[in-house]
Amino acid sequence: MPDFTDRLRPSQPDGPSTLAREREQSNISVDELGRHLLADNGFLERQARILPIVQREALFSKEKQQNLSRPERFKLGLARAKLLRRLADKHDWGNLDYKMAQYLVDDVSPYMLHTEMFITTVREQASKHQQAHWMPLIESWRIIGAYAQTELGHGSNVRGIELEARWETDAKEFVLHSPTLTASKWWNGSLGRIANHAIVVAQLLLPSQGSPRQYVSHGPHPFIVQIRDMKTHQPLDGVVIGDIGPKYGYVTMDNAYMLFHNFRVPHSAMLSRYASINPDTGIYTRPELPAVVYGALTYVRANIVHHARLVLARAVTVAVRYTAIRRQFHDRDGERTGPEMAVLDYSTVQIRILPLLATTFALHYTGLAMRTIYENTRNEFERGNFQTLAHMHSMSSGLKSLCTTLAADGIETCRRALGGHGFGGGSGLIQLNNDYLSKPTVEGDNWMITQQLAAYLIKKMTAAVQSPNNAAADEIDRRFKEFLSARCDPGLNLPQHDVLDSDDDIAKSFTLRATVLVFCSARFGSVGALLGVC
Amino acid sequence: MPDFTDRLRPSQPDGPSTLAREREQSNISVDELGRHLLADNGFLERQARILPIVQREALFSKEKQQNLSRPERFKLGLARAKLLRRLADKHDWGNLDYKMAQYLVDDVSPYMLHTEMFITTVREQASKHQQAHWMPLIESWRIIGAYAQTELGHGSNVRGIELEARWETDAKEFVLHSPTLTASKWWNGSLGRIANHAIVVAQLLLPSQGSPRQYVSHGPHPFIVQIRDMKTHQPLDGVVIGDIGPKYGYVTMDNAYMLFHNFRVPHSAMLSRYASINPDTGIYTRPELPAVVYGALTYVRANIVHHARLVLARAVTVAVRYTAIRRQFHDRDGERTGPEMAVLDYSTVQIRILPLLATTFALHYTGLAMRTIYENTRNEFERGNFQTLAHMHSMSSGLKSLCTTLAADGIETCRRALGGHGFGGGSGLIQLNNDYLSKPTVEGDNWMITQQLAAYLIKKMTAAVQSPNNAAADEIDRRFKEFLSARCDPGLNLPQHDVLDSDDDIAKSFTLRATVLVFCSARFGSVGALLGVC
Repeated sequence: MPDFTDRLRPSQPDGPSTLAREREQSNISVDELGRHLLADNGFLERQARILPIVQREALFSKEKQQNLSRPERFKLGLARAKLLRRLADKHDWGNLDYKMAQYLVDDVSPYMLHTEMFITTVREQASKHQQAHWMPLIESWRIIGAYAQTELGHGSNVRGIELEARWETDAKEFVLHSPTLTASKWWNGSLGRIANHAIVVAQLLLPSQGSPRQYVSHGPHPFIVQIRDMKTHQPLDGVVIGDIGPKYGYVTMDNAYMLFHNFRVPHSAMLSRYASINPDTGIYTRPELPAVVYGALTYVRANIVHHARLVLARAVTVAVRYTAIRRQFHDRDGERTGPEMAVLDYSTVQIRILPLLATTFALHYTGLAMRTIYENTRNEFERGNFQTLAHMHSMSSGLKSLCTTLAADGIETCRRALGGHGFGGGSGLIQLNNDYLSKPTVEGDNWMITQQLAAYLIKKMTAAVQSPNNAAADEIDRRFKEFLSARCDPGLNLPQHDVLDSDDDIAKSFTLRATVLVFCSARFGSVGALLGVC
Repeated sequence: MPDFTDRLRPSQPDGPSTLAREREQSNISVDELGRHLLADNGFLERQARILPIVQREALFSKEKQQNLSRPERFKLGLARAKLLRRLADKHDWGNLDYKMAQYLVDDVSPYMLHTEMFITTVREQASKHQQAHWMPLIESWRIIGAYAQTELGHGSNVRGIELEARWETDAKEFVLHSPTLTASKWWNGSLGRIANHAIVVAQLLLPSQGSPRQYVSHGPHPFIVQIRDMKTHQPLDGVVIGDIGPKYGYVTMDNAYMLFHNFRVPHSAMLSRYASINPDTGIYTRPELPAVVYGALTYVRANIVHHARLVLARAVTVAVRYTAIRRQFHDRDGERTGPEMAVLDYSTVQIRILPLLATTFALHYTGLAMRTIYENTRNEFERGNFQTLAHMHSMSSGLKSLCTTLAADGIETCRRALGGHGFGGGSGLIQLNNDYLSKPTVEGDNWMITQQLAAYLIKKMTAAVQSPNNAAADEIDRRFKEFLSARCDPGLNLPQHDVLDSDDDIAKSFTLRATVLVFCSARFGSVGALLGVC
């Protein structure tokens, strides 16, 4: 409907001219910076190749999605995810291509648990024989899998989950059974509507060696289980599945609950790369390191760390551009003529946004470092060396907490810096915030897993104090030992670090500070004894 | 559909038994505390009387509202608001009764701008003659009004709004005209769908005394304007109205944009209790104090301050109850038998939740104090005394910023303390958070209006320094003068305040600290010169 507003223009200077002038003032080469940051793994080439393909698809338009009901929004997310898979087949995309397309489409895929946790768990914890059977089915999406670990009553304390997998020696089957309501699997994504299979984590109950009628728990183990009929898609007898209802974000994810009633699965259901049961004797073989069963969680944490930079970069970009364009009030010390002051020129805006711009770069390099640690550890792991697993696990825990807190709080700081318009859908920060606010609590609550890192560091420091002559196992060890051997050396005094002029000295100071804090925590149980280091 | 899950119970100890035991351990009388906090203005009696009435209405059930589309959710909010009005008529509710019912129904009313800003502006800024005409129409809802002040380009800087109201001497009419796109009224609630009238704030343009063909702006003034046809509900010719699209929260509010094209309104449209134009001579009479035109905003800010306590109380109640029930991990120093530890017993949870419990009480007393300041000022105001207006305005600005930041950040801290379940709709914190996240930026951005308080305090301090013998005008003045006369008195030394054992001394210390900070800011332009007070 044409009306008089069609002829109206914004008051001057408008957004495009303001941004053009701001950009002219910078001597940074955007292309060069882009290559420095994102050329790794062919990110920029991949983006340039895939963007036009997804841009052509009307289904990916975001124009009306915020007005939809939850069921409609889920269906839209599902249709997009299916289209992405078809595009992947058509263009013969590899895994990184597919992930780039997902990133550009900017919607949580209902298949995410299938393509991440389900496949990763089978790849890492299934025996070669199991992998040969399952991987073709998974990769072709002939089966769709969810990851069912968290329960209504237990998330962080995985060892406390209640679902039972009782081994019946005679039938040579496991019996999955939920003894209570709090044993309900809960939050499990890709499960409520789309999965027909799931990795189900349950307490492995085996007959006691002494009295075979009694059962002993051997802790949580993963099972691969068909949960729905392949034709009717109805849950199988003895399985109940349902939607857990509305959430803060993740509106396109079918997070679900699931309970079992004496549901029988075959011996082959237990993923047996590390732990296994001899079907004839019932003898249980333990994993070399119990920690390996948490491999998929560590993978997801490392991914979250690597992802945080892109999330905060988006929020900061929105904030910088908007506050450069937005003008409000004349400078009180100026002549009060001409355009009002750009909001970005207020110190009260700069102290909020500019540190977050710097944080984005810090998150970038942290994400790359995390990825390197993960890949190196996986390589060692494939060679049968599990020594660096604890290091990777503690790094991924500490950094997952730090990076997601910085990014989540940073998005909200950016949103508020947009003033009223930050509350509007046009800001582009609403779904970003709603989805990302899951990150500080998901895959290990930030407050909880930070303590895993702390416990690890204290253990390492205690070992270094007790056995000063052992060789350093890794970089943390090396730094701890350096500190311990030199700790009463006056050369360590902080003022000798030229933190104002030397980047290296800033890093050294932070390293020393962290080491001293660990030392005091390990030795005195608190950091209050800082002055008693020597 | 009955199934095996119907027979399942939660693992023990369950929620009700845990809460019962926690409550047994407290010797605080809930009833007495409730009366102490909420008996004022008959809050508890009113709640007890109105709760059963609204509980009977199926329309107020929240069960499925989070699954609705935005248009459906708006219609539900509208239906609820109409029902509330019918209930008010049926039960002969007064204004406080009506507000209690709204609070209990816990949905943003699409009529909120009508019942708050629209009616308040007419009551405060319309002449007696205008009030006699409009108030019966407004109170009976025969007309529905919005409040159209904020524009796409200007929110905080009200003086910068672009909509023009040009006085045409010959026609004795005002011509409302939006010269640019950025002059679009924007964010105005109750406007997109339901209002047929609006308070429209526009730059008053009058012919220059010297050259009548030139116009001079006399700043923003409020006009009461019919904007839609009373029968067809279509916008009148020369008016364009539309929805501004999805928002973070306020899903039941029809926030809108509005533009005018040479739209003529009669002389009587300008609210003329303070400012007015003689229709015959065109002579403009200024308000005694220009600040009075912001009266409605101050009213809303004071209300926001008073409201924050109830919002945070709700979030803290959810967090305390949930973390008392939720158990995770056995005490590492305990025997690792029996139930796991309540999450509330972890110090990492207590340091987040318990200060917010205390903050809730602080917000409560702050809210009461704000209300008292507001009511006293309004009373003075009715007697023609505007002297305390600046005090009220600065208090409402500073406290609006402080209280909404504490409450908004507090809700999110509570939500995260619930772990994964805080991300779920069952937490009850999602709509609360989504709606409340408007508060740090709406009705004066928190970072901006805090500076209004700072400027006011610095001005007061400067006056106290320059004229030490003037009588103190208010409590702030008195404290400033006390400080100035005694500032080199060693008795002021902080250590003499027994902040660990004396509540009075804590308050005195905070007062002294605030006063010293204002003094340093006023005298040295920064607080860095703290040591140079004497």
